[in-house]
Amino acid sequence: MASTSAQASFFVPSFEIERRIRCAQDTFSQNGFDAGLLFQNLDRFYYSGTMQPGVLFLPAEEEPLLLIRKNLERAAEESSLGAIRPLGSLSGLGTILIENGYAVPQTLGLELDILPAQLYIQLQNIFPSARLLDASIALRRCRMIKSEWEIENLVRAADVAAGLMGQVREILHAGMTELELAGLLEAFLRREGHQGYIRTRGFNMEVFYGHILSGPEGTRASYIDSPSGGLGIGPAFCQGAGFKELRAHEPISIDYCGCFNGYIVDQTRMVSIGEPAPAVRKAFEAMREVQEILKSRTLPGITGTEVYDWALEEAARLGYRDTFMGSGPSKAAYVGHGVGLELDELPLIAEKFDWPLEENMVLALEPKVILPEHGLVGIENTYLLTPGGLEPLTRAPEDFLLL
Amino acid sequence: MASTSAQASFFVPSFEIERRIRCAQDTFSQNGFDAGLLFQNLDRFYYSGTMQPGVLFLPAEEEPLLLIRKNLERAAEESSLGAIRPLGSLSGLGTILIENGYAVPQTLGLELDILPAQLYIQLQNIFPSARLLDASIALRRCRMIKSEWEIENLVRAADVAAGLMGQVREILHAGMTELELAGLLEAFLRREGHQGYIRTRGFNMEVFYGHILSGPEGTRASYIDSPSGGLGIGPAFCQGAGFKELRAHEPISIDYCGCFNGYIVDQTRMVSIGEPAPAVRKAFEAMREVQEILKSRTLPGITGTEVYDWALEEAARLGYRDTFMGSGPSKAAYVGHGVGLELDELPLIAEKFDWPLEENMVLALEPKVILPEHGLVGIENTYLLTPGGLEPLTRAPEDFLLL
Repeated sequence: MASTSAQASFFVPSFEIERRIRCAQDTFSQNGFDAGLLFQNLDRFYYSGTMQPGVLFLPAEEEPLLLIRKNLERAAEESSLGAIRPLGSLSGLGTILIENGYAVPQTLGLELDILPAQLYIQLQNIFPSARLLDASIALRRCRMIKSEWEIENLVRAADVAAGLMGQVREILHAGMTELELAGLLEAFLRREGHQGYIRTRGFNMEVFYGHILSGPEGTRASYIDSPSGGLGIGPAFCQGAGFKELRAHEPISIDYCGCFNGYIVDQTRMVSIGEPAPAVRKAFEAMREVQEILKSRTLPGITGTEVYDWALEEAARLGYRDTFMGSGPSKAAYVGHGVGLELDELPLIAEKFDWPLEENMVLALEPKVILPEHGLVGIENTYLLTPGGLEPLTRAPEDFLLL
Repeated sequence: MASTSAQASFFVPSFEIERRIRCAQDTFSQNGFDAGLLFQNLDRFYYSGTMQPGVLFLPAEEEPLLLIRKNLERAAEESSLGAIRPLGSLSGLGTILIENGYAVPQTLGLELDILPAQLYIQLQNIFPSARLLDASIALRRCRMIKSEWEIENLVRAADVAAGLMGQVREILHAGMTELELAGLLEAFLRREGHQGYIRTRGFNMEVFYGHILSGPEGTRASYIDSPSGGLGIGPAFCQGAGFKELRAHEPISIDYCGCFNGYIVDQTRMVSIGEPAPAVRKAFEAMREVQEILKSRTLPGITGTEVYDWALEEAARLGYRDTFMGSGPSKAAYVGHGVGLELDELPLIAEKFDWPLEENMVLALEPKVILPEHGLVGIENTYLLTPGGLEPLTRAPEDFLLL
């Protein structure tokens, strides 16, 4: 089928899978894990190339074994792994490992940050003599560093996001609701290949494309970890675009994810219908100054906390100490985050995150400020960290768009 | 602010919260739980009216205590609960309970089906003498039965979905991709108040609106628990709309969720550009016959398995034993499911689900068949179960739409 072969370029190449498996095995060895057992869709996909349901057994020193509950044939098409077998009941897992020539692991790395407690308790019974340890940081650490193939996909995701402000220019008019604008921008992104669904790692971290927020209502803090959240639809989904009408002169913030072949970039741009208040302009230029400081200083070896502290210092120097990244107890304690197959990847550019940044990390930096009388104002780009510093992947024009 | 007051009707009324709390407390008493401790966004929202981050302590016999990590003021606006307090570190939870006049629970109900293992382990340390039990079925059981207020919201969600086929009639043309059609239909739904984000309970259960699937490619089984899944964007999101172009005469299945104020309805309709193959027509009429059999027989007191068995029997009688609800090892073992604030609510209309159905349950029934040479064919409606039987909430015209 034509459309099947057109998708061949979307498959994860075997050299990618080999690289990823090596990285996981290295960290498992360093951490003293005999093996990892991966359940989450995204982890299984990252390390095998397929998301068909099952479990990936990933020993520190032997070939991985992919166990598939359904769609074995499709899994074999999508994954370049050598050992792919059917999975019956999970309770037979120990036996399956032995039958396939593996020793039953004594220290087993699990995704304890997202594994449901029921499944964890079941695994305690399946592997009664094993120590069940948290492998989530080890697994996520490998994902921080992007390969050339992944960067190509991220560039395509940035392409999808690049046209967004052109669409805004065509579509936006006073009196339309945030939801109406959101839907039309989403339709544009979908046409360009956006999968819609934005994967997140964090428990209770619900994201739908991102946030379109306008005016003072957009500054209300909400349930997700973000400088603001806005009213949303109502208490049942109290974040992002809602029934609010877009008014002239108010700042409209468009914080939307591009996505291509699973890879996400994060981007925020500002627009208003007619000139916004001088305070909005001033705050926007300040956030761009914060961005430029971070861009000029961030290099491999610097920690996420150093970058965060520079952002705080610069925002304070420019007069935005209290409302930078939100205000009061709702202030977000970060100014950026890793991004890739999940929106909330490592590393964090945050209050307490002292890992040194490394080449080929992909970071979203989003200096933003709350102006309670006007709205949320800021900018966000996704960057590749190179030996020479941050190179922007997102390329939509940065100027405050005036309609 | 006008838009704030316009949203007042979206708030969960206090009588709703009281009813829900009573239901949870009754089931806790029956199960011997001293209290439940609710972490998931949706559970906290259902029992408190707010999703602002924190924990809901829900004792079997006393007033609930809502502990809020941030946005206390917003939580107090959204929730009608009397006791709402700030939450510092989770490790101080035992102390907070004592300070607020509660005994530390000895049997504590938790959402073990979705609670991350790390958090479960942390709770074992916070409540070392307590038995941590699974309250997820108890909590979800209460949600099965919809109130008048909830049904009003579900009717509005069905209103949002009702206009979908009118949009298809206007938009659809040969040569456009599934993604292009999907984006435009989504834009319509958003304008009408759809929050976009579809909540699911199941681990790894990723849903984005639903599935638009066309032609034989649409019959490929995929990673989610569904009769088919299609190619999707590629292995990274291998379900639903993809880059495939819509062709004349092939069946196009539009299985999309309506949503209003958090409440979801599930609906599937068929369309084709020009007359589809006779086998497609025949299969469609057969699935409608299956639907009519289920509609005519389903009453309170019948079990989900009985309804499922009728569907299998009728599908087999009509000649679709092997491909009804998917084929081979990828066959889905259900023909319907509860729906409400989550897409995959209880009860199940499935192989092994012997709970008697009750009045005011809301059920999506979706008889579907795979025709490998043609595509996925079927129909789906969301119903309210009344003493007299199933009353459809979804009301889009059911006929196979010919363009």
